[in-house]
Amino acid sequence: MEDKVNLADKLASFSERFSPKIVGHLNDYKLEVVKAEGDFVWHSHEETDDFFLVLHGRLTIQLRDRDVELSPGELFVVPRGVEHCPRADEEAHVLLIEPAGTVNTGDVDSALTAQEEHI
Amino acid sequence: MEDKVNLADKLASFSERFSPKIVGHLNDYKLEVVKAEGDFVWHSHEETDDFFLVLHGRLTIQLRDRDVELSPGELFVVPRGVEHCPRADEEAHVLLIEPAGTVNTGDVDSALTAQEEHI
Repeated sequence: MEDKVNLADKLASFSERFSPKIVGHLNDYKLEVVKAEGDFVWHSHEETDDFFLVLHGRLTIQLRDRDVELSPGELFVVPRGVEHCPRADEEAHVLLIEPAGTVNTGDVDSALTAQEEHI
Repeated sequence: MEDKVNLADKLASFSERFSPKIVGHLNDYKLEVVKAEGDFVWHSHEETDDFFLVLHGRLTIQLRDRDVELSPGELFVVPRGVEHCPRADEEAHVLLIEPAGTVNTGDVDSALTAQEEHI
């Protein structure tokens, strides 16, 4: 059985931006924390929705037709197939949930494409 | 597309204890908020893990061999098939994630068994 997870402790253990770290699992989903700062990359996930819950700071989920502005305690689910580009003007901390194996940059091969990493 | 969800706003909109409210979906999973106070009921879910993230207050996940004490910003995943009984000595607010259709009391029929309800 995995132990409980203190999200702030996990976030304090690394500094890279846009490099999600797996902190647990829910069935075949991975639970990840990420530090966002700056613009990510426009991408979509054809096979899955994408869950964002802001823990610290502010995150903008840019969609092609509007921006979704998230503060701590706010979550947003990007539907599968919908292009999006997260952006944080200052450092933001986010909980991500998506099926294990989902690539962070979705359909786009980018310098920001990250390998799955457990912490 | 579902809109963003402010968890505190959703939690402010009802008062019942141990009556999870659906606030969104991630693929075939439901995202729920619940107010816990007192003892829930011992139960397990044979088909799914069970995700708890404390947003406010403190929640104890009682397992048969130990207690898991959760403060805000701490999450715990109860593995499928593992008996557990949440308890909150004072009001606690929790984000739950599990497959749509999962019954809150799992394998146990209880006065606390709740119907799925969206808010």
